[in-house]
Amino acid sequence: MISKNEPIRGIVPPLVTPLKSDGTLDVASLENLVEHLIAGRVSGLFILGTTGEEQSLPVKTRQEMIRETARINRGRLPLLVCVTDTSIAESCNLGRVAADAGADALVAAPPYYFATGQPELLQYYQELIPQLPLPLFLYNMPSHVKVSFSADTVLKLAEDERVLGFKDSSGNAVYFQSVMHTVRAYERFSMLVGPEEMMGESVLLGAHGGVSGGANMFPELYVGMYEAARDRDIDRVQKLQRVIMQISTSIYTVGRHGSSYLKGLKCALSVLGIIKDDFVSPPFYKFLEPEREKIRRALDALPIVGGKIAI
Amino acid sequence: MISKNEPIRGIVPPLVTPLKSDGTLDVASLENLVEHLIAGRVSGLFILGTTGEEQSLPVKTRQEMIRETARINRGRLPLLVCVTDTSIAESCNLGRVAADAGADALVAAPPYYFATGQPELLQYYQELIPQLPLPLFLYNMPSHVKVSFSADTVLKLAEDERVLGFKDSSGNAVYFQSVMHTVRAYERFSMLVGPEEMMGESVLLGAHGGVSGGANMFPELYVGMYEAARDRDIDRVQKLQRVIMQISTSIYTVGRHGSSYLKGLKCALSVLGIIKDDFVSPPFYKFLEPEREKIRRALDALPIVGGKIAI
Amino acid sequence: MISKNEPIRGIVPPLVTPLKSDGTLDVASLENLVEHLIAGRVSGLFILGTTGEEQSLPVKTRQEMIRETARINRGRLPLLVCVTDTSIAESCNLGRVAADAGADALVAAPPYYFATGQPELLQYYQELIPQLPLPLFLYNMPSHVKVSFSADTVLKLAEDERVLGFKDSSGNAVYFQSVMHTVRAYERFSMLVGPEEMMGESVLLGAHGGVSGGANMFPELYVGMYEAARDRDIDRVQKLQRVIMQISTSIYTVGRHGSSYLKGLKCALSVLGIIKDDFVSPPFYKFLEPEREKIRRALDALPIVGGKIAI
Amino acid sequence: MISKNEPIRGIVPPLVTPLKSDGTLDVASLENLVEHLIAGRVSGLFILGTTGEEQSLPVKTRQEMIRETARINRGRLPLLVCVTDTSIAESCNLGRVAADAGADALVAAPPYYFATGQPELLQYYQELIPQLPLPLFLYNMPSHVKVSFSADTVLKLAEDERVLGFKDSSGNAVYFQSVMHTVRAYERFSMLVGPEEMMGESVLLGAHGGVSGGANMFPELYVGMYEAARDRDIDRVQKLQRVIMQISTSIYTVGRHGSSYLKGLKCALSVLGIIKDDFVSPPFYKFLEPEREKIRRALDALPIVGGKIAI
Repeated sequence: MISKNEPIRGIVPPLVTPLKSDGTLDVASLENLVEHLIAGRVSGLFILGTTGEEQSLPVKTRQEMIRETARINRGRLPLLVCVTDTSIAESCNLGRVAADAGADALVAAPPYYFATGQPELLQYYQELIPQLPLPLFLYNMPSHVKVSFSADTVLKLAEDERVLGFKDSSGNAVYFQSVMHTVRAYERFSMLVGPEEMMGESVLLGAHGGVSGGANMFPELYVGMYEAARDRDIDRVQKLQRVIMQISTSIYTVGRHGSSYLKGLKCALSVLGIIKDDFVSPPFYKFLEPEREKIRRALDALPIVGGKIAI
Repeated sequence: MISKNEPIRGIVPPLVTPLKSDGTLDVASLENLVEHLIAGRVSGLFILGTTGEEQSLPVKTRQEMIRETARINRGRLPLLVCVTDTSIAESCNLGRVAADAGADALVAAPPYYFATGQPELLQYYQELIPQLPLPLFLYNMPSHVKVSFSADTVLKLAEDERVLGFKDSSGNAVYFQSVMHTVRAYERFSMLVGPEEMMGESVLLGAHGGVSGGANMFPELYVGMYEAARDRDIDRVQKLQRVIMQISTSIYTVGRHGSSYLKGLKCALSVLGIIKDDFVSPPFYKFLEPEREKIRRALDALPIVGGKIAI
Repeated sequence: MISKNEPIRGIVPPLVTPLKSDGTLDVASLENLVEHLIAGRVSGLFILGTTGEEQSLPVKTRQEMIRETARINRGRLPLLVCVTDTSIAESCNLGRVAADAGADALVAAPPYYFATGQPELLQYYQELIPQLPLPLFLYNMPSHVKVSFSADTVLKLAEDERVLGFKDSSGNAVYFQSVMHTVRAYERFSMLVGPEEMMGESVLLGAHGGVSGGANMFPELYVGMYEAARDRDIDRVQKLQRVIMQISTSIYTVGRHGSSYLKGLKCALSVLGIIKDDFVSPPFYKFLEPEREKIRRALDALPIVGGKIAI
Repeated sequence: MISKNEPIRGIVPPLVTPLKSDGTLDVASLENLVEHLIAGRVSGLFILGTTGEEQSLPVKTRQEMIRETARINRGRLPLLVCVTDTSIAESCNLGRVAADAGADALVAAPPYYFATGQPELLQYYQELIPQLPLPLFLYNMPSHVKVSFSADTVLKLAEDERVLGFKDSSGNAVYFQSVMHTVRAYERFSMLVGPEEMMGESVLLGAHGGVSGGANMFPELYVGMYEAARDRDIDRVQKLQRVIMQISTSIYTVGRHGSSYLKGLKCALSVLGIIKDDFVSPPFYKFLEPEREKIRRALDALPIVGGKIAI
């Protein structure tokens, strides 16, 4: 369902993993979330990424999340499963679970305990790719994994048809442009941008889409931004950007630590009724009532009509 | 000549400081460079920034650069002078030299030996601004000064009419969007982006212009990108972006160290005949012949017609 | 076998995990290594740490390493098992395997995908500790996990009797002294230093021992340093330090990347015949012949007599 | 007065620069401070270092500080002047002022705006050294200047007799041991450690002394530690270390930012009556009364008898 001949386009949201207060998967909330996203016209489902707390979940919850999402999705949208791990064998194990469940592609950031040099990073992916049962997206996430793909390493990996694209969460537009320029000969190769705050401008410059966390809440907003940028409607891009930045500077900045984004997003989803509990796996912990009240007020300040951003 | 009521718009190139092989100012090359830039329709001249090697120059060469640029410019373009220093008194001293020479505005990045917290940074600028004889642009350059303005600190400083704008060289589009969103109520406040690789997309999203180093070589290219983005001509933005990225990934990446950009830029300017020698002040050193040959070849690969990028 | 009333003292080497060329556990080499270490009079066995490549191994190899080491050890020495993971549930799972195999204590560095603030870090350990079946050593490893325990967080955790001690691999002597000073009221609390290059001086100042990677090769050297420092024999400390630094600046610095230490150590162990193959798990890769030859020469330059450092 | 044939030994305190509330040099306080230090049996005077706020002072205050310290010192102790600058010419200018005033040696950290590679760093010092009128100590201060001397760069520079030694403020004991091991053939070459918290252990392992900021307050404490370590009196080393750590974890940690050390030290000196005002140059600002009260209490908790640490 993912073509090898053309890039995936649009918004592929990184799903939060809905959890009950005891840390187990909340399947009912997951059903609600998936239907909410499909109704919001997203282009794919990306699970177990950073927003999906893969690393914090028990392995069996990761497996359950894969199977349940695949079951709920019923093949309606491409399903991408993040298999980032420090152990190449465990990435492959999770990849097989994903393939068995009917996922379409895998996503892997570099191993994140040991920091590799570029030659080691290249060799690692060259070993990993043929062992995986599904094609792969590369995932750049230097703040969390400590290393960044050089543009040249991306280019070498893009030569392999099993490598479908590159998702960059660095936030660095110079870097993103540099990679996009370097791999431009591969028209089938997807260039996806992580941070939603730079998604519009990236699509205007040629990126194929975004992995926008905020789309868990308001898929129509980010799909709208993607389409406005694709259609080169700059007035609309600028208008939607203001809402996207309002979300970014209110809902994602309530807490004091790096966990603010994740806590704020899950809390808002809970307030909006899209998921039930906003439990966050250790080492992060969900907001207490004072922060939840701030999230409520931040949501109240948004132009929401009928549960959707009025755009 | 810089309005307090509306932002400066367009390309304000950060001039290299042309130096002779003994490290002294090459006034003839400076004349050539300034005329080249004015002919290229830039919107202002920004001297003694990072590209201008302020920190590496003797104080008297900094003063000479200010006076000579002002003399050559003859008030044709707004003249912005960078007075970043670790000593508040020395920033003021250089600011007075600039005011006496007829400069229009000053630019200051945070002090860069001691790393400050945000309250200290705010207090520092609140002390600095009233002591300066000219209005000020804030300059964000975390890779070199180790601290970054928080959006909130920018907002507090933007309330002061003597603060004309903000130049961000972080390369971080999420951060740039966040600051732009935070200060959006101040319509007179200039938002300028440093890295030329993200200038087009930033202008599309509402930035007022760029401080593009490559404009030393090809002002018409970056002015063209600014105008294409301002005019929302996305085809042209994407076309020019390819040339800008070709420059970025060839001319600026010949060396192995962080100095590659500066060495490559000065070497290319010398090969193009815009400046004579490509002397770089210690602790950097100009390219030797093998690297110079690579720069020549990188220039040959560009679509140059009659000394200009054919756009 | 580990007392709750007094700190563990001496050298507790972080065992490499001997692997065959197909990446599976080399039990025969492990037997050889454990006997070599016990004969070298170390004070405990620490497995699956950074030197033991825990994160790079498949989960089942981690489990096998625990069971085989426990079997070989036969209770002769305290067995410490590192259970660092990004998932609190998986740390507990591995902890149960260790307890079932007869290990004496666990070791856990902070979760290393998400970077926590200190309150989150404290809460994380306060949740983890009661779920573990064995007492715990805290493990500080900021270069790999991105966060560092504040001295105050260590103090709060040290109040819990199930927390036996603190192993610091920061290399920062100011930090180590600061933590040691802060927890000095807990006489039972072990202060162990990771980097062997600073082990002697740390013991002279009151640390209880070291987790010295080089002890895999030459246990008598590091045990000798520990004893010399304990006995305040400064002449001997300085003499042994020269050998320790010769190893550090030759065997650990053959490669170009951060992996040099691990590759060099395993290669040397293989040259010395202590383990058979020097296979390193992805994302690292063992040295090729040119580097192996450099390791051979580095070993030849050491004062080795009869397989031991002549001290 | 500094021998080229043997290393300088003992405590060479980095003098704070006493300033009046208008930011000008407080010569009377400087006289008091210098006499206090000489009475405290320090081995030299190191001015305009990080503790001396060189970078924050106006150039003419730097010059005045040099001349006044030299005048007060009357050649009683070796006078070392820090000339770290981003401009090689300005380092030389300050060096000439120091030579004219009768200083004995200069100290220079790497240029700190542009971050150099090691070859550039080596070339920079090879250019700087012959231009300086006095011999030089290398100063490693990576937290402030962003680059660290490689051990190999130190070795190459140590070959020049005009390079007297190396002061390391990295706090990294592995690094310090590595440099000390690498240059051990140069017996005349001084190895001095910056952070007082690791001074004792470094001297025990062979360092020649320390540049201990706390010696501004209590020179006899740090001289006592140096002598105890030199004389290998480990009981005394451990006893003094407790006081040194008490100072480090109380007086230097009152504030929230990186400026805590400098503010705390100057505040304590003011409370102790050694200097009058505790004015700190922008971008740092002296403590207000609540913090000053904490410093008073921290001082009260120290074993001070007759203005000195009772040791």
